[in-house]
Amino acid sequence: MASNSFGNLFRLTTFGESHGPALGGIIDGCPAGVRIDESMVQKDLERRRPGQSKITTQRKEPDAVVFHSGIFEGVTTGTPIGFTIQNTNQKSKDYSHIQNSYRPSHADFVYDKKYGFRDYRGGGRSSARETVSRVVAGAIAKQFISPISIKAFVIQVGSLKLEQPYQELELECAEENVVRCPDPEMAEKMISYISEVKKKGDTVGGVIRCVIQNVPVGLGEPVFEKLHANLGAAMLSINAVKGFAYGSGFEGAAMLGSDHNDYFNEDGTTKTNFSGGIQGGISNGMDIYFDVAFKPVATLLQSYESLTNEGKIETNHGKGRHDPCVVPRAVPIVEAMAALVLADHVMMAKTSKI
Amino acid sequence: MASNSFGNLFRLTTFGESHGPALGGIIDGCPAGVRIDESMVQKDLERRRPGQSKITTQRKEPDAVVFHSGIFEGVTTGTPIGFTIQNTNQKSKDYSHIQNSYRPSHADFVYDKKYGFRDYRGGGRSSARETVSRVVAGAIAKQFISPISIKAFVIQVGSLKLEQPYQELELECAEENVVRCPDPEMAEKMISYISEVKKKGDTVGGVIRCVIQNVPVGLGEPVFEKLHANLGAAMLSINAVKGFAYGSGFEGAAMLGSDHNDYFNEDGTTKTNFSGGIQGGISNGMDIYFDVAFKPVATLLQSYESLTNEGKIETNHGKGRHDPCVVPRAVPIVEAMAALVLADHVMMAKTSKI
Amino acid sequence: MASNSFGNLFRLTTFGESHGPALGGIIDGCPAGVRIDESMVQKDLERRRPGQSKITTQRKEPDAVVFHSGIFEGVTTGTPIGFTIQNTNQKSKDYSHIQNSYRPSHADFVYDKKYGFRDYRGGGRSSARETVSRVVAGAIAKQFISPISIKAFVIQVGSLKLEQPYQELELECAEENVVRCPDPEMAEKMISYISEVKKKGDTVGGVIRCVIQNVPVGLGEPVFEKLHANLGAAMLSINAVKGFAYGSGFEGAAMLGSDHNDYFNEDGTTKTNFSGGIQGGISNGMDIYFDVAFKPVATLLQSYESLTNEGKIETNHGKGRHDPCVVPRAVPIVEAMAALVLADHVMMAKTSKI
Amino acid sequence: MASNSFGNLFRLTTFGESHGPALGGIIDGCPAGVRIDESMVQKDLERRRPGQSKITTQRKEPDAVVFHSGIFEGVTTGTPIGFTIQNTNQKSKDYSHIQNSYRPSHADFVYDKKYGFRDYRGGGRSSARETVSRVVAGAIAKQFISPISIKAFVIQVGSLKLEQPYQELELECAEENVVRCPDPEMAEKMISYISEVKKKGDTVGGVIRCVIQNVPVGLGEPVFEKLHANLGAAMLSINAVKGFAYGSGFEGAAMLGSDHNDYFNEDGTTKTNFSGGIQGGISNGMDIYFDVAFKPVATLLQSYESLTNEGKIETNHGKGRHDPCVVPRAVPIVEAMAALVLADHVMMAKTSKI
Repeated sequence: MASNSFGNLFRLTTFGESHGPALGGIIDGCPAGVRIDESMVQKDLERRRPGQSKITTQRKEPDAVVFHSGIFEGVTTGTPIGFTIQNTNQKSKDYSHIQNSYRPSHADFVYDKKYGFRDYRGGGRSSARETVSRVVAGAIAKQFISPISIKAFVIQVGSLKLEQPYQELELECAEENVVRCPDPEMAEKMISYISEVKKKGDTVGGVIRCVIQNVPVGLGEPVFEKLHANLGAAMLSINAVKGFAYGSGFEGAAMLGSDHNDYFNEDGTTKTNFSGGIQGGISNGMDIYFDVAFKPVATLLQSYESLTNEGKIETNHGKGRHDPCVVPRAVPIVEAMAALVLADHVMMAKTSKI
Repeated sequence: MASNSFGNLFRLTTFGESHGPALGGIIDGCPAGVRIDESMVQKDLERRRPGQSKITTQRKEPDAVVFHSGIFEGVTTGTPIGFTIQNTNQKSKDYSHIQNSYRPSHADFVYDKKYGFRDYRGGGRSSARETVSRVVAGAIAKQFISPISIKAFVIQVGSLKLEQPYQELELECAEENVVRCPDPEMAEKMISYISEVKKKGDTVGGVIRCVIQNVPVGLGEPVFEKLHANLGAAMLSINAVKGFAYGSGFEGAAMLGSDHNDYFNEDGTTKTNFSGGIQGGISNGMDIYFDVAFKPVATLLQSYESLTNEGKIETNHGKGRHDPCVVPRAVPIVEAMAALVLADHVMMAKTSKI
Repeated sequence: MASNSFGNLFRLTTFGESHGPALGGIIDGCPAGVRIDESMVQKDLERRRPGQSKITTQRKEPDAVVFHSGIFEGVTTGTPIGFTIQNTNQKSKDYSHIQNSYRPSHADFVYDKKYGFRDYRGGGRSSARETVSRVVAGAIAKQFISPISIKAFVIQVGSLKLEQPYQELELECAEENVVRCPDPEMAEKMISYISEVKKKGDTVGGVIRCVIQNVPVGLGEPVFEKLHANLGAAMLSINAVKGFAYGSGFEGAAMLGSDHNDYFNEDGTTKTNFSGGIQGGISNGMDIYFDVAFKPVATLLQSYESLTNEGKIETNHGKGRHDPCVVPRAVPIVEAMAALVLADHVMMAKTSKI
Repeated sequence: MASNSFGNLFRLTTFGESHGPALGGIIDGCPAGVRIDESMVQKDLERRRPGQSKITTQRKEPDAVVFHSGIFEGVTTGTPIGFTIQNTNQKSKDYSHIQNSYRPSHADFVYDKKYGFRDYRGGGRSSARETVSRVVAGAIAKQFISPISIKAFVIQVGSLKLEQPYQELELECAEENVVRCPDPEMAEKMISYISEVKKKGDTVGGVIRCVIQNVPVGLGEPVFEKLHANLGAAMLSINAVKGFAYGSGFEGAAMLGSDHNDYFNEDGTTKTNFSGGIQGGISNGMDIYFDVAFKPVATLLQSYESLTNEGKIETNHGKGRHDPCVVPRAVPIVEAMAALVLADHVMMAKTSKI
């Protein structure tokens, strides 16, 4: 089904496979009059780019975006914004050995069963390469929703976990290290650990936290487009995500109401923020914060057992260039998807009252 | 915005406030030819009904659904199924004291800011009373998707938590106790604890697990309608939900890929199921399982501080009849939303191939 | 498929069959703060009601609407507006003779083939009875879009046709006669003609013109939600409609550009209005006007040949109470659908600029 | 608003302005397994291409489409099909004289008022150049829906009008002359007339008829996605279209029911086809046919009066290369939009029954 669009009023539709000639998308519904700095788009692409550090895949993709429409003299015109990113470094030969076999915990098996057919080159559409289009659109959305600010960072790699609340961290520090953890000491530990995991040809999961600030009161559309429900759907659409929790999250389940309730100050702010900036599905003006859990990516540079399309188990050995831990590069993707949700809700909120 | 519809091809649209004359909805897109047993709908309404046990609110609402269309001689006709549930027990006077004040951690404040206006009677549209329409539609969806089966149950209340995997539990036992926990011993503890909490006029959160079985391979529509992303959005749209995780969930973030990968058997099943029955957003035929975290409900039968619409803090005292712990009654709601997602995906999967 | 919703941001979803217990709908997306006069809804229902004059069907249906939600103290709250209309006068026995036969030019045959199943009682969902919900929603929409005004009237019955442009007619006169033609002399002729047709048990088609005034500049969303494309889709969704033309319409095809172009006045209005108030799919502030062609309804009170579901031709004789000419009662339906389109576009236009 | 998508399950989203670097689109929802002959796409582009004959604009645009995704080894994969068409012949300087003035009966005025902003180069998004993406997608849709066949042709230019029913015409002849009229004699007259009109720098309107054959019974989704309502919306979204009528159309309004009803043959076909192949919004297996009226295009190569954005009337003189009559080049556009509607309905019809 037509399922490659995200958003209601500010809507991204994407296309592209990991080994096709190009990926891209269309941003439809961006209002006229948004001043666009294309270098900010390119900057976010750099943050997502493979080969940016020793703990990410060594594939090198320049990931240069070309805009085809919708921006005239540096300003959006209200018409759809089309863009493409050429694939310049497809190594299809790396994947020929898996043409007839389904790798464990990949989408190979289910794509073949669902579509009766599979683009076996590097995962095709199921590859996280697809998220490059999201980062482009998210960078446009960020400029539209400004001064709302979105900041994501890594709080967990394997069992290495930052325990401080985000208010006690210097969030700007996150971009100063390759793992994107705002605590420099923990960042070091995470980097060492990922390097170790990489040496073994293994992978490891992690958790990203995202904080959204300067949010106006009133974003969110009950009952089926609640702000956090849309954020959750956005995050869960990212490759390898297994969980989403906002505000008090799973810890909130253990609490008493008398401890959990956020009491008001006279200006409408609240003394605590277990609600995570959203009540009844609508932003209340406090910071929005949420966590996103990523599983370890399934592609190992080790031996593993696959299933052939003839129902036999065979042993393969991973090769190629892959990320030992996906979370550092997923930080701009989390931000991009959050920006798309916020942009959509800023648009929708224009329609609440006469 | 028009945000009261859920689903793409099997779509529920709902209406109704806690203290209006009636609630209801329209199920649009249910295919022709589904045999409907209306008593199964009523049975799920009973499971959600207030006043069903000593640990739920003592409000008594019969919650009888009336179907107006779309079912002829016991079979769906392919036309929209309209239904209503009368509100018979509105006690608007219970709420008059909060007409001008915003209760903490409720939606009062944000509704007033967003819509410039508020139906102050019992939360209006933001009340969980709204979920009654979801349970009706979910019960229709369950009959459409059969033999896919959906079973939800309580695994945590406060810090009382079942640690066994669901395979070691007798899931049928869940409906034999009022807290809907499949372990009788733990159920007893939970019931005692909720009774204690209730006596203090306090509330407590909890976690529901849901297991979906007999799922065919191939449900799920990448990249923005992945099966788990739609399940997550569905769960997060339920009142009081703070988190969603499927398969290995947040624990998966701490794992190595070599431990997390689910190796195949020759028949296409997998030896383990950390994936939670979904790979690349598409069902692989294994059980789907996920957890949903609920915060403690905000309505306390204690003193608490509110904000008036004139910016003053005032002290109120909760009264009326409320649930000390929402999770037992939320079990059928979780199932209903899961059923709606599955029904939608069964429909969408019809369109994958020529 | 879920195809019983109309509109993007101001969205109506309907349910109901001609012989089920009730029809109704949900208006989702109506903004908060619209003052609603329910008597105006009832008034439009009266204009659509069967049995209102000697030239319409003699069925008597009171068509009283009940609102269940979304309106509080006479004002919309921003939550969905649910409503029902009970069917009080179903005469199922009138239809038993056609249970196994497909009437010519009805939807009997195609419904049975499409759904494998048919509610044979009076056409079920395919009956124009369904439009009662549209009139309710349109009457709400009219109040939202005020001071935009919508006025439909009959300009043709059979080959009796008003040739004057609408500017030369007194549009208020249309409601003063039962055929709803603004020219009293022509109205007389039409009424006589319809009476004649009725005596023979035959039916006749006609054309309705609709004029929309006080339209702001800027309604319409290129390229696939152009204002006139949405109006066309709305009209073509009404039972028995065969054609839609706006502005110069089919006559425009015969014109030269130098005659057809609408030259500007300095205030932005135009000297002529062949464009019909819409350019490039967007309203230009001039009157919008369009024509809607209705075929003669297929239900005759004569002998006719049907096809049985076993592939035999059999002769039936029409009975019951039917409209000899549908256009007088279709006038409020045309207005209602136009109002829904305008309401949707007023909402969408809020999102054009930052 | 996001209004550049067409279709529900087989959905085209387009982008691009007449003078931007490229146009293109994404076809989302095309099922896996459709064999694609790209030369058929190119062939339809040639039929739409400017500069193809002496009666069309002399602009030369090669209009070569590049596919980026969704087709692998000549077959669709079920993933979105992205494509672009480079603009190689933008002559922005032709338009500099209209930067501050609104041409009559163009979209200049309304775009500026709606978006607060205008891409003045050749109409920007409002140019019919945009339809190039529709022709690409339509050519893919045609291959998906085969053996359903779609054939459009010109039946009227100015007041020159073919009166025969389509069954008496040799439809294949339409492509043998530059005006695309299936009657060679009438084609000659039309070509002469257009040449005359062109010499005067004027333009003229026309009518296209479209016939769809080999349609299965059961396409169409009441009540708001009736097959003809979707066809009407599709046609009305094409630049310069003023009217749509199917089956008996506006002539049907003058008929009696006893003449208009289509009586059955025993095999379910009908003896006549005033219904135009659609009853109750659902195809009945007979030919679908409809007419589309086009106004004369507004761009004249004569003197004309414009309105400046400062509210002054000024005289301009048209220059550049424009079509004197749009209908010959609109034939493949009508076919493309019809193919998109049919493809969408073929998909939707998969969901009618369990």
